[in-house]
Amino acid sequence: MTKVIVCGATGYTGLEIIKILLKHPKVKITAISAVIEKPQKMSDIFPELKGRFDMVCEQKSIQDLTDIDAELVFLALPHTVSMEFAPHFLKKGMNVIDLSADFRLKDVDVYKKYYGHEHKCKEYLTSSVYGLPELYRDKIKAAKLVANPGCFPTAAILSLAPLASKMSKDIDIQDIIIDAKTGVTGAGRKAVLAFHFAELSENIWAYKVGVHQHAPEMNQELSALAKKDISVLFVPHLAPIKRGILSTTYVKANKNLKTVELVKLYKDFYKNEKFVRVYDEGKLPQAKDIYDTNFCDIGIATSLDKIIIVSCIDNLIKGAAGQAVQNMNIVCGFDEKLGLL
Amino acid sequence: MTKVIVCGATGYTGLEIIKILLKHPKVKITAISAVIEKPQKMSDIFPELKGRFDMVCEQKSIQDLTDIDAELVFLALPHTVSMEFAPHFLKKGMNVIDLSADFRLKDVDVYKKYYGHEHKCKEYLTSSVYGLPELYRDKIKAAKLVANPGCFPTAAILSLAPLASKMSKDIDIQDIIIDAKTGVTGAGRKAVLAFHFAELSENIWAYKVGVHQHAPEMNQELSALAKKDISVLFVPHLAPIKRGILSTTYVKANKNLKTVELVKLYKDFYKNEKFVRVYDEGKLPQAKDIYDTNFCDIGIATSLDKIIIVSCIDNLIKGAAGQAVQNMNIVCGFDEKLGLL
Amino acid sequence: MTKVIVCGATGYTGLEIIKILLKHPKVKITAISAVIEKPQKMSDIFPELKGRFDMVCEQKSIQDLTDIDAELVFLALPHTVSMEFAPHFLKKGMNVIDLSADFRLKDVDVYKKYYGHEHKCKEYLTSSVYGLPELYRDKIKAAKLVANPGCFPTAAILSLAPLASKMSKDIDIQDIIIDAKTGVTGAGRKAVLAFHFAELSENIWAYKVGVHQHAPEMNQELSALAKKDISVLFVPHLAPIKRGILSTTYVKANKNLKTVELVKLYKDFYKNEKFVRVYDEGKLPQAKDIYDTNFCDIGIATSLDKIIIVSCIDNLIKGAAGQAVQNMNIVCGFDEKLGLL
Amino acid sequence: MTKVIVCGATGYTGLEIIKILLKHPKVKITAISAVIEKPQKMSDIFPELKGRFDMVCEQKSIQDLTDIDAELVFLALPHTVSMEFAPHFLKKGMNVIDLSADFRLKDVDVYKKYYGHEHKCKEYLTSSVYGLPELYRDKIKAAKLVANPGCFPTAAILSLAPLASKMSKDIDIQDIIIDAKTGVTGAGRKAVLAFHFAELSENIWAYKVGVHQHAPEMNQELSALAKKDISVLFVPHLAPIKRGILSTTYVKANKNLKTVELVKLYKDFYKNEKFVRVYDEGKLPQAKDIYDTNFCDIGIATSLDKIIIVSCIDNLIKGAAGQAVQNMNIVCGFDEKLGLL
Repeated sequence: MTKVIVCGATGYTGLEIIKILLKHPKVKITAISAVIEKPQKMSDIFPELKGRFDMVCEQKSIQDLTDIDAELVFLALPHTVSMEFAPHFLKKGMNVIDLSADFRLKDVDVYKKYYGHEHKCKEYLTSSVYGLPELYRDKIKAAKLVANPGCFPTAAILSLAPLASKMSKDIDIQDIIIDAKTGVTGAGRKAVLAFHFAELSENIWAYKVGVHQHAPEMNQELSALAKKDISVLFVPHLAPIKRGILSTTYVKANKNLKTVELVKLYKDFYKNEKFVRVYDEGKLPQAKDIYDTNFCDIGIATSLDKIIIVSCIDNLIKGAAGQAVQNMNIVCGFDEKLGLL
Repeated sequence: MTKVIVCGATGYTGLEIIKILLKHPKVKITAISAVIEKPQKMSDIFPELKGRFDMVCEQKSIQDLTDIDAELVFLALPHTVSMEFAPHFLKKGMNVIDLSADFRLKDVDVYKKYYGHEHKCKEYLTSSVYGLPELYRDKIKAAKLVANPGCFPTAAILSLAPLASKMSKDIDIQDIIIDAKTGVTGAGRKAVLAFHFAELSENIWAYKVGVHQHAPEMNQELSALAKKDISVLFVPHLAPIKRGILSTTYVKANKNLKTVELVKLYKDFYKNEKFVRVYDEGKLPQAKDIYDTNFCDIGIATSLDKIIIVSCIDNLIKGAAGQAVQNMNIVCGFDEKLGLL
Repeated sequence: MTKVIVCGATGYTGLEIIKILLKHPKVKITAISAVIEKPQKMSDIFPELKGRFDMVCEQKSIQDLTDIDAELVFLALPHTVSMEFAPHFLKKGMNVIDLSADFRLKDVDVYKKYYGHEHKCKEYLTSSVYGLPELYRDKIKAAKLVANPGCFPTAAILSLAPLASKMSKDIDIQDIIIDAKTGVTGAGRKAVLAFHFAELSENIWAYKVGVHQHAPEMNQELSALAKKDISVLFVPHLAPIKRGILSTTYVKANKNLKTVELVKLYKDFYKNEKFVRVYDEGKLPQAKDIYDTNFCDIGIATSLDKIIIVSCIDNLIKGAAGQAVQNMNIVCGFDEKLGLL
Repeated sequence: MTKVIVCGATGYTGLEIIKILLKHPKVKITAISAVIEKPQKMSDIFPELKGRFDMVCEQKSIQDLTDIDAELVFLALPHTVSMEFAPHFLKKGMNVIDLSADFRLKDVDVYKKYYGHEHKCKEYLTSSVYGLPELYRDKIKAAKLVANPGCFPTAAILSLAPLASKMSKDIDIQDIIIDAKTGVTGAGRKAVLAFHFAELSENIWAYKVGVHQHAPEMNQELSALAKKDISVLFVPHLAPIKRGILSTTYVKANKNLKTVELVKLYKDFYKNEKFVRVYDEGKLPQAKDIYDTNFCDIGIATSLDKIIIVSCIDNLIKGAAGQAVQNMNIVCGFDEKLGLL
C-alpha cells in the first residue's frame, strides 16, 4: 500500500480526495492536516465519514508532516500556501500532487497579475508538470511535482484541445468565448453571505467577467497546443447547484464546418481516453451526467461559421480531487482508473 | 401619510417590511437604520430595490432616531437590543412594533432561561400586547408596544387556538407535538457555514429538539387560551427552502373525533379572519400556497384519537414583516389588509 | 373598471396575469377559460388564490367568450390556438393582448419554419404591434392586437437595443452570441420527465442550440433597429430555478470600447424607462434582483473588442404576464406601472 | 461471477442497482428488462452510464427472462407485477430479491386494503423473508425469495427496533408518531405535475396522513419485535430534495428516560451492524450524512416522557437498491459490504 498524506483535509476538495482514497485498493492515508482550531475527528466534522474514516485532523507543521513516513502528498491548499509546503516534500523525495494554482502558470508575471503575489518558488516551475492526463500523461509519469489543473481550465481545455491541436490553414479558429456555469463548491467551504442558501437558491449570476484567474491557465495550455497565442474570453457564472460545471464554448471558424466532422475529430482525439466521453451528433451532455464522477463529457453543435462545444465535469472530481487521484495513479504506475470507476 | 422608521433594515425581515411598505398607500418610510460598517444605499445592498427605494442606510444612534419626526417604528432587531431601543420611542409617544422576542414572554425567568439574558425592561411587559391579531385584535388597537410573535409560534398557535380555546370535558387534548419545517431565512441574513448552499441543498435536519426558544411562547399563549397549563414538545427542522414554514401538529384527544367536525370548528373560529384559510376535509396546505403572502393556511386530518393539523405560513411575512404591518394597520386604524393583499 | 377576459388561465402565465390583475385598481376579470377536463374553481387548482379569486374555470367556446361583456382579452394560449381565437375578439372590437408567438413574426415563412405550421391569420400581421413598450410605446397605444414578446427576446432585445439603434460606422457590432439561462416555468406547466425535480435539481443543460424559435424574433427586431440584417447565435440553457432569465450577450465591436461609455449609452437610451434599470460600471445584475418583478436589469462589461451585456428578467413577469399588463396599461391609457409596482 | 438479472431497469431504483453492481467484484449483470417502447441502450436513457454500461434495454417476456442463464434476479417492479414474475424465477430455482411491496405483508387482507388488489401469490408469503438484514440476517441467508423493505419502513423500523424489542414492564412505549420527510425519487421516475421542479422547489407538503401503505409494514414488524400489537401514526412529507429520508419518530414512554441510556441501548443493539450508525448524545444525523450510501444514521433526544428518534437513510440505497444488494450479498454468501462501501 502506498502511503499518502492529505493537506487541507477539511475543504470540499480534501474531503473528496479522502472519499476516493477510501475506495482505492492500493493506497493508505497515513496522515491528514488542515488549518483547524483544535484537533477534531474527521467524522465529527463530516459525519458521513463516521465509521469509515475517523482519523483525527489537526494542524501539523511542515516539520511534522515531512517526518511522516509517506510516499506522496496531496496539497489541497490555498494558493501561496502550496508553494511554501511543496519544496519540503520534494526535497525529501516525495511525490507532490498540488491542487492549488501555484505551479500551473509557467510565467511568474502572469501569476503575480492574477493572484496578487510574487511567486516564491520559481525553481520548481520548470520541472512541475501540468496535470491534465489527456495531454501530458507521459510527462506526469516522470513528474515529482504535478500541478493539478483548475476546474474551469479542465473543462475548457478538454473542450478545445482537438481544435487547438489541429489549428492550421485548414481549420483556424478565433474569438473563443467560454461561458461557464459552475456549482458553488468551486468557491470552497467557507461561510460567505453570497453563497448562503437564501441568496443562491433561485438565483444565478456572472462574475469576474473577462478577468478570472483561470483564463491565463486556459491561454497557456491552448497556446501551447495551437503553437500560437490564444487568448480566450472567459465568463464564469454561479448556478444554484452544489457541484458540476457546464461550460459552453463558442468559437468562430474560418469556414462553415459540419457537426459530424467535428464529432469525428473529437472522438478520434479522445479515442484512448477513459474519462472523456464525446457525444454523438445531436446530443449534448448535462451536468447530471457526470455528477460525482471523473468524466468529462463533450457535445458539439455548429451554426454557420460558429462551433459550440458543451462540456461537463464535476468540479470536485475531474475538476479537482478525481483528477488528482488520476494523476497519482499515473505517477505511481497504477491502473489510471483505480478508485475512480 | 403616517411616517414610520425601520430599525434593522438590512436583515431579511427589515427588507420585507420595506417592500411591503413601498406598496402601502398610507405610510411613508422616513428613516431607516441598521448596524452597518459605513452608510450605503439600500439599493446597493439589495439591488432589487434599485429605483424603488434608494434611501441611504446608516447606523443611527437612539438619539438620532428619536429626533426624527415619525409616528411609528418597526424594530427588526436582535433580542436584547430591542429592549434597549423601545423605551426611548415609547417615551416620546411613538408606537412600537417590536419583532424581537423581548416583549413576547410575560415571565422574565422564562425569558432568561431561553434567551440567556436578564430582562432589562420589565416595566413594559404588562402593557405590551402579543401581536397575534386573530387573538388580540382589540388589545392591539390600544397598544403602544406590540410584541410581534415569532414565526414558529404564529403557525403553532393558529394551528391550535380553536382546540385550545374549546378545551373542556367535551374536548380535551394532550401530548401536543409540533414538528415544524422551516426555510432558512428564519435564521437571519448572515454568513454561517451550515446555511451555505452546498450544505443545505439536498439536506434537511432537526435542531434544538425540545429546547427551542419559541416553545415557551407557544406554551404561554396556548395555556392562556386553554385556561390551564399546556406544554408542547416542539421540534423544528431546517428544510432546503428559502422561506416558508410547514408545521405539522399532533395532538391526542380524549376521544375519536371526525375530521369534518374539526374542520367546522376551525372554520367557525376563523370565520372573520381574512388571513387564515381553513381547508376543506381531505385537503392540506402546501408551503407554496402561502409563499410571499400574509396567509396562514390550515388543514386538518384525524387518525383514531389523534388530530393532525398542518399549517403553513411564510416565515418572513405572516411570521414576521407581514404580521408586523398587519399590527401597524390595526394600531393606526387602517384597513387591516392594506399593503398585504 | 375595465372588464377583461383571460384565456389560458391554468398555465403559469395565466396564473401570473390573474395575480397581477387582482392588485390592479382599474381592471376587473369578468371571465376566464382554459382547456380543462371539467369546471373547477381556480382556487382549487391554485390554492394560493383561495379567498382571493375563486372564480370557476371551464373550457369556453369562442362563441361563449365573445358573448361576454368585456373590453380586452389576454390570450395566454399555445401558438396556432391564438390565431384561431384572436380574430373573433378583434371583429367584436375588443383589444387583444396575445402572449403566443402567432403575431410576433412578420414573415410567415419564418413562422412556418420555426413553428411548423402555416400561418392562418395573415391579415392581422400588418396591424399587430410587437409589444415591447420600450421600443414601440406609441404604436401600442393605438394597437388593437398586441403581440406580447417572447421571454428570451425581451431580455435579448433590451440587451442590444441601444447598440443596435446606434449602429453606424462609429460603432459596428457583429458575431452576436446570446447565452441565456432560464428557469423552468418558461417551458409551461405540464408534466414532463425532463422537468421533474429529480432530473433538474443539481443539473443544467443547453438545448436547441442555434435553432430555438425565439432567435428569429430577436433577429427581426434587432435588424429593424440596426437597419441592416442581424442574425444572432442564440443558445438557451435550462437552469435549476423556477423563474428568471439571465442572458449573457457577447458582441464583437469594430473597436475597443470603454465600459463607462457603454453604460452611459445604455442609461441615456433607457432614461425614461421605469422598468429597465442599467447598472453602474463594475456591477452586474443577478436573477434574484428582478424576481417576481417587471424589471429588466442590465449590466455591461468589456474585454478588448468584446462587449458583454448581462440582462435579467423574470420570464413570467417582464417576459410574459407583467409585460402583457404593461401593454394593457398602455392600450387602455392607464399609468403604465399600475399593478406592476 | 454470479450472474444476475435486473427487471425494471429504467426506474430510479433499477438504475441504482445497476450502478452498485457495476462496482461489485463478484457479480455480472447478464440481462436487464423494463417496460419500454422500443429497445434502447441504457446509456442513451441514462448518459451517466455511457462507456460503463451500454447494454440494450428492452421489454422481455417472462419466458425470455427465465430462459436466461442467471442465478439471481432483482425485481424493481411495481406491486402486483412482482407477484406475477417472481414464481417463474423461483420455480427455476433462482433467488429473487423483490423490491416491490408484494411479499412484505404477511396478511393478504391488509395487502388488499392498502394496495387495492387481491394477492395472487399467497403460497410464497410464508417462505418469503422480510429483507431487513439487521433483524433477519439468518433467515435471509436461507431465503429464496427476499421481500426488500419499503424505504419509510426501513427508517422507521430501525428507529424503533431497539425500543420495541425491549418492551416489557420496564420500558413501555405508546403513541408512536412517525413524521418522515422524503426526497422525490421515492415516488418513482415518472412525469407527474406535482413533482415538476416548479411545483416542488421552495415547497414542502404532507400527504396520505395516517393512511400511507407503508404504515402496515411498520406495524407488522414492530409488533413482531414487541410481541404485542403496535400501530403507528405515520405522516410522510415530500421535501424538495432528490433523495434521502429524514424520519422523526416520537414515542411516549411509561417514564422519563435519559438520552444517554437510550444511546447506550441503541449502540448495544446495533453494535455488530456495519450500516447502522448511532450518534452520541447531543448529535443528530442530517440527510446529507447518508447521501448516496447504504447507511442508516440514528440520533436520539428526550423531553420528559417523550423520546425523539431521528433517523436518516438514502431512500434509493438503504431504502431500496443498496439494501437489495446487501440482501444479495447475504443470500450469496458474500461479504455483506461488497459494492456498498
